[in-house]
Amino acid sequence: MNYRVIFNIIGKVLVIVAAFMVPALILSLCMHESAGAVAFVISIVLCAAIGFPLALCRPKRPDIFAREGFITVGLAWILVSMLGALPFLFSGAIPNYIDCVFETVSGFTTTGATILGDVEHLPRGILYWRSFTHWLGGMGVLVFLLILNPLSDKNTGEGMHLLRAESPGIKASKLVPRMKDSAGILYLIYIGLTVLELLLLLIGRMPLFDAVCLSFGTAGTGGFGVLNDSVASYSPYCQWVITVFMLLFGVNFNVYFLLLMRKFNRALKNEELIVYVLVVAVSIGIISANIFRLCSGVEHTVRTAAFQVASIISTTGFSTADFDRWPQLSRTILVALMFCGASAGSTGGGAKVIRMIISFKSARRSIYKTMHPNSVRIIHVDGERIDDATVGAVGAYMLLYFFITAAAVLLVSLDGRTFETSFTAVAACLNNIGPGLGGVGPMENYSMFSWFSKIVLTLSMLIGRLEIYPILLLFTPSVWRKIHR
Amino acid sequence: MNYRVIFNIIGKVLVIVAAFMVPALILSLCMHESAGAVAFVISIVLCAAIGFPLALCRPKRPDIFAREGFITVGLAWILVSMLGALPFLFSGAIPNYIDCVFETVSGFTTTGATILGDVEHLPRGILYWRSFTHWLGGMGVLVFLLILNPLSDKNTGEGMHLLRAESPGIKASKLVPRMKDSAGILYLIYIGLTVLELLLLLIGRMPLFDAVCLSFGTAGTGGFGVLNDSVASYSPYCQWVITVFMLLFGVNFNVYFLLLMRKFNRALKNEELIVYVLVVAVSIGIISANIFRLCSGVEHTVRTAAFQVASIISTTGFSTADFDRWPQLSRTILVALMFCGASAGSTGGGAKVIRMIISFKSARRSIYKTMHPNSVRIIHVDGERIDDATVGAVGAYMLLYFFITAAAVLLVSLDGRTFETSFTAVAACLNNIGPGLGGVGPMENYSMFSWFSKIVLTLSMLIGRLEIYPILLLFTPSVWRKIHR
Repeated sequence: MNYRVIFNIIGKVLVIVAAFMVPALILSLCMHESAGAVAFVISIVLCAAIGFPLALCRPKRPDIFAREGFITVGLAWILVSMLGALPFLFSGAIPNYIDCVFETVSGFTTTGATILGDVEHLPRGILYWRSFTHWLGGMGVLVFLLILNPLSDKNTGEGMHLLRAESPGIKASKLVPRMKDSAGILYLIYIGLTVLELLLLLIGRMPLFDAVCLSFGTAGTGGFGVLNDSVASYSPYCQWVITVFMLLFGVNFNVYFLLLMRKFNRALKNEELIVYVLVVAVSIGIISANIFRLCSGVEHTVRTAAFQVASIISTTGFSTADFDRWPQLSRTILVALMFCGASAGSTGGGAKVIRMIISFKSARRSIYKTMHPNSVRIIHVDGERIDDATVGAVGAYMLLYFFITAAAVLLVSLDGRTFETSFTAVAACLNNIGPGLGGVGPMENYSMFSWFSKIVLTLSMLIGRLEIYPILLLFTPSVWRKIHR
Repeated sequence: MNYRVIFNIIGKVLVIVAAFMVPALILSLCMHESAGAVAFVISIVLCAAIGFPLALCRPKRPDIFAREGFITVGLAWILVSMLGALPFLFSGAIPNYIDCVFETVSGFTTTGATILGDVEHLPRGILYWRSFTHWLGGMGVLVFLLILNPLSDKNTGEGMHLLRAESPGIKASKLVPRMKDSAGILYLIYIGLTVLELLLLLIGRMPLFDAVCLSFGTAGTGGFGVLNDSVASYSPYCQWVITVFMLLFGVNFNVYFLLLMRKFNRALKNEELIVYVLVVAVSIGIISANIFRLCSGVEHTVRTAAFQVASIISTTGFSTADFDRWPQLSRTILVALMFCGASAGSTGGGAKVIRMIISFKSARRSIYKTMHPNSVRIIHVDGERIDDATVGAVGAYMLLYFFITAAAVLLVSLDGRTFETSFTAVAACLNNIGPGLGGVGPMENYSMFSWFSKIVLTLSMLIGRLEIYPILLLFTPSVWRKIHR
């Protein structure tokens, strides 16, 4: 294991986090929030004090192999979460450190599950930082680092392992030959869409602070709001804007890159995009019919259904209605959407639409194969053949996903909550959504769980965001044993 | 498609079913249950009237390929269920035909889910038939036919497709070269164990009728009882006997064959058996600790835990306690056991322990492969290598299983029951268990569901018992299209 390169990268990441805390500090100072300002100063100093020495650790070889890539990403995310939690602790906003870490991991992983019942009384600087973690975690802090990192200038292959470990999907593909440029283009699209949403919200007369925080929350598909009722009290126009942008941030960013390159045909024939749009449309249709009598008028019905569907499938987790009180059919559709999740290469979580497509095609092929045991049948996506290794990897990933879901539900059920609460709490955390049903419904929060369940759910959020392996590898003895060879 | 051979086999199956109704008719006559006797006479006549002409349909070629095997098994099970339901209808025991079919499919698939709240007032003949369907469905009516069927004398390969389609597990293997002898040995072991349980229950002074019915229910891992409180009111001795036999019938029958052949070492080193025993032991341990304060004393605690664990993992579905009222941890463990299920080659349902083992090993391999993307790593079970095609097939099967679970839960949730009720109703039917949690807990029944949900759950039971493909293929257009080539 190339420890030096791991330390070096993690050090740089911590320095970046320290730098990103500065705007929150300035905001705290402007708002005369002394507790918040002091908390940010201490946190920045601590991040920098740990980050700089690590960043100075010059690697002898710049090699990053798959193993180093996963370990770096796993460790970096855990460290960033533990240090990013400090402002909550030092400002007194959240008294308990486990709760602070839960909230921060929920932020960085863009889950949006909160242990806070009342967010409106939090200092502005803290609220800003809470929402900003969504934005940074959405695209990934290591992807951000790749834009600056000189390592990737020398060897474009090395950044790939970091990108692959941090980005969701079955395969991370570079948009352009140079790693640094790919990461840059991703962030430019990301910033562009975020700014566009911000402007549209401001046109709808949303207060600037709310608009900034909600844009962060939408862009990262996070879900932390600044009001206790999430997005319910904003105007219908603002709700529609957020609905559209939640869906947009759940699309593979490669599609936007293709659109920018004027390859409209290839962009719009993307199979994952088509399935994503179909699932959204059908879900909105069924739920609208199902909740019609609970709403006032067609626009309200469709808006409510569309907002909640967009929020769950993009794994954002905002809400404008207490969908826990909806008829069972609509609730069950939402639970199914939780596991489906957004597209690969987006900021959304869940199992990802592309994995569902490949799983479905693989399952369909198995029906054919029972009839014709010796036949060879290739699975195609977007006209390209998916080799059996990839199909097998997707199958193994899905099985791992279900095993982890089952294990986490078992551990959380030690708390003695109902099956619905335990199951949807795990589903909502593992898939980075936020609210579930029952005791963790959109009008509830996660504060009633024991510290043990909170740790299980925190790990679930990290496992979901980083797509299992970076976290699981940290706990795999053979990964560490090989160092001594 | 070789239609004639399909008709021929289905005809013979119906004649066998008619023959097996005769003991129930005799019992009805002995008990002076005129309504029951008339119902059985009409049913026997109808079965024979449809069965004989079909059985006389002589096939030109005796070929049975994979496709014919699956279609025959799928169609035979549906027809047998529809005709086996007639005694319930004609005797007036169950007034509604959809309910009759639900109860019969629940019997043949060894699910044990019932729509009857009060079984103690049913005529004896009907109760006997209800329990006997478990015994016949457990090992399989087509496997029984193979013992008699002259087809398999000419060509041993052909019976294989029937055995494969009707027997649970990843691959049906013949015990001895001749198909007919294999089927015969399986049934001899089956009958032997059933008689042994019957004797042990009689020694425990259980009434003969109850002992026969419960032995049928245990052997098929079915779960229909003859008392309203299932097995709760029998003596601790009888409960222990049933516990042990539920576990025994959940073991791969190949193990018993190896024991009979005195190959003790190979039998006891069976990986599936070891995992099965471990899962049972750990589950009993945890649940005993968890429910200790609800029981009176150690023996009662362990007996209650062991009975319920054995009942759920073997997918029998008897109960001696209302586990719906247990602490959440124990309830969640039971739900996890529902999906795990019994061993391949047993009479139990569920996904099967062997599939869990291969899935787990495949998931573990994927962790290794992320570190070493180009490595080749073989999965072994019982020291034998499992080729990638089998691993892929298991993965595809599990994905199909989860897709079907999700689809069925969505359809059943149209009824508006709680998430727990809808989810565990599907889990209990698809895995052929019987009772679930909440509205379908061990003290409840399935009568409150709509006819639509009952049909969905009926299909789920068939899909679970026949391991998906025989039923799905019936609804796959391309299976039928190819006939015209």
